[in-house]
Amino acid sequence: MDIFFPKILRGLKRGPAVIIPKDFGMIVAYSGIGKKSVVVDAGSGSGFLAIALGNIAKSVTSYEWREDFAKLSEENVKRADLKNVKIKNKSIFDGIEETGVDLVTLDLADSEKAVGLAFNALNETGVLAGYLPHSQQVAKFVEECNKAGFKQTITLECIVRNYLVRESGFRPENIGLMHTAYLVFAYK
Amino acid sequence: MDIFFPKILRGLKRGPAVIIPKDFGMIVAYSGIGKKSVVVDAGSGSGFLAIALGNIAKSVTSYEWREDFAKLSEENVKRADLKNVKIKNKSIFDGIEETGVDLVTLDLADSEKAVGLAFNALNETGVLAGYLPHSQQVAKFVEECNKAGFKQTITLECIVRNYLVRESGFRPENIGLMHTAYLVFAYK
Amino acid sequence: MDIFFPKILRGLKRGPAVIIPKDFGMIVAYSGIGKKSVVVDAGSGSGFLAIALGNIAKSVTSYEWREDFAKLSEENVKRADLKNVKIKNKSIFDGIEETGVDLVTLDLADSEKAVGLAFNALNETGVLAGYLPHSQQVAKFVEECNKAGFKQTITLECIVRNYLVRESGFRPENIGLMHTAYLVFAYK
Amino acid sequence: MDIFFPKILRGLKRGPAVIIPKDFGMIVAYSGIGKKSVVVDAGSGSGFLAIALGNIAKSVTSYEWREDFAKLSEENVKRADLKNVKIKNKSIFDGIEETGVDLVTLDLADSEKAVGLAFNALNETGVLAGYLPHSQQVAKFVEECNKAGFKQTITLECIVRNYLVRESGFRPENIGLMHTAYLVFAYK
Repeated sequence: MDIFFPKILRGLKRGPAVIIPKDFGMIVAYSGIGKKSVVVDAGSGSGFLAIALGNIAKSVTSYEWREDFAKLSEENVKRADLKNVKIKNKSIFDGIEETGVDLVTLDLADSEKAVGLAFNALNETGVLAGYLPHSQQVAKFVEECNKAGFKQTITLECIVRNYLVRESGFRPENIGLMHTAYLVFAYK
Repeated sequence: MDIFFPKILRGLKRGPAVIIPKDFGMIVAYSGIGKKSVVVDAGSGSGFLAIALGNIAKSVTSYEWREDFAKLSEENVKRADLKNVKIKNKSIFDGIEETGVDLVTLDLADSEKAVGLAFNALNETGVLAGYLPHSQQVAKFVEECNKAGFKQTITLECIVRNYLVRESGFRPENIGLMHTAYLVFAYK
Repeated sequence: MDIFFPKILRGLKRGPAVIIPKDFGMIVAYSGIGKKSVVVDAGSGSGFLAIALGNIAKSVTSYEWREDFAKLSEENVKRADLKNVKIKNKSIFDGIEETGVDLVTLDLADSEKAVGLAFNALNETGVLAGYLPHSQQVAKFVEECNKAGFKQTITLECIVRNYLVRESGFRPENIGLMHTAYLVFAYK
Repeated sequence: MDIFFPKILRGLKRGPAVIIPKDFGMIVAYSGIGKKSVVVDAGSGSGFLAIALGNIAKSVTSYEWREDFAKLSEENVKRADLKNVKIKNKSIFDGIEETGVDLVTLDLADSEKAVGLAFNALNETGVLAGYLPHSQQVAKFVEECNKAGFKQTITLECIVRNYLVRESGFRPENIGLMHTAYLVFAYK
């Protein structure tokens, strides 16, 4: 079971678990970001999400409190040759310095604690996206979104099935990725 | 069962069936397009895919042989206020005029007949994406990709499950969208 | 979106929500019951699960504390012409009178409260099956299974996709049932 | 990724690929068989489906043209200690000797060639079930069902997702079985 990565992510080094294309695709599609968008991301991890978003958005600022991960992400940004992605070696829980943001993405053990900060950093049509492996995180995250003043949340999971296509027929691959994370999108 | 659409697609008029965010997200993620990308699309239909791609890419040219659909797409491009999306009222089967293209998307009854044209229009790292509702179309499309010289194809389907998140618990919605189309990505 | 029911369930009257074949099939497969099996079920609801199990097992006793539902289930058992299915108008929380049971099925708002009673009623290779719509019920139910002394639990969901098969091709139906309930199987 | 098997199938020897509980459960649920049912099966393979059905039905006759597989199935029937399952070392394509059958299950490379024979062996409420890994087999099989005179076919696939349930939360297992086979049920 190989996971496909688009070209921009292929040569990169991996530390902590990285977001894979199916979930990245959902974040783009459900946030509606484009080339004029300003994005804030935390935590950087290996920098894959920041880089994938940087390929699309005007600018991406990614917060990472761990020095080793921040360094790894920084190196990956250089490898991907993106000038519009900035890694900040800070905890997002200490505050989001950016304002008028179009998208905040959170993939942290305690993502729900940054929901209020994200709300304030976002502009009036801004979207918050949470990447949450467990159902309990989803419950806490959605509760915080409601408290923070977001008007709507969408919680979903994205399952991709790969197919074998041969002359003799067509069928899904036998083994596959059943789960990575639930995604919550919060809209002002 | 409501289908979510991002802001840029909300005010648009619908004629023929439109691509929905889950499949659009896959096309972005598996093609790796970004703000420097040049995209060719056919057929325009209601223009939703061309517009969603136009929000991300440098330019999108969308072919539509039916005059009524071309007109509808044109109007939707104006509503979305995108200057980089061009609707051509021509059949893509008569030739793709663009060259050095990063992504060609095909959503036609006979998409397989444009595979060779797409191959020639794409640059050397370009990607072809087919949106194919039936398994038989997939078989024909993949066969044509192999013949045309693409080195790799990935065939997949994307299933999104929406969740209800309430204090009392967490569960998927009972009824949902089980299928829209298979997606084939062909890489040079 | 039609739900298929096998012949034995077709002429029956429906009151409260009924179990559908996909979940019934999982209960049979993951419990391993057969024609020698003794089954206890609660609550009867409309009696569909008791009847479907009665078609296979040696005997089924189904507990239902609500008089109206017990009556409805009784009538449905008569319609299905099964002599080996007994509806008891009692709450299972007041005790399971049967012993040496092969399978206990629980589909109640508070199913977790009957887990200990089920453990005691089951024989040493007996299986407990919980039908639980929400994730929070699953968490509580599994916790009670662990406390009661069950050695293993399996939690799963079963998703059935229906296909259209025509000369022109093959594809899943567009709209379908995404969720009914999570199933927990507990083994001694 | 462990596949669960109910007790009756655990000690058995495996030769060719065996049917797993999710698909067996669908066959029971969508055929409606019970303890009075007469079943015909082909090919036996390792005998797993015949044995699982034998645990429920009145009698099962399973056809297997390969001598080695017939022998293996025979041994497994003895291990499972079932008196009502008979393995016939014959090709089902040479004819089904049983009549008034309630369920015929086909899991063969050319299952579609036995559809007519199955139709004739089945009683008037009898059900044919085909286990078909590829979409092309499904297309041929359904076509033969229509030709043979079956009034209705249901084509489906069953996807089971296993969950991890821990104090810290609830989530699907990451890797799982995405596909075994499509199932076609044909009703007279």
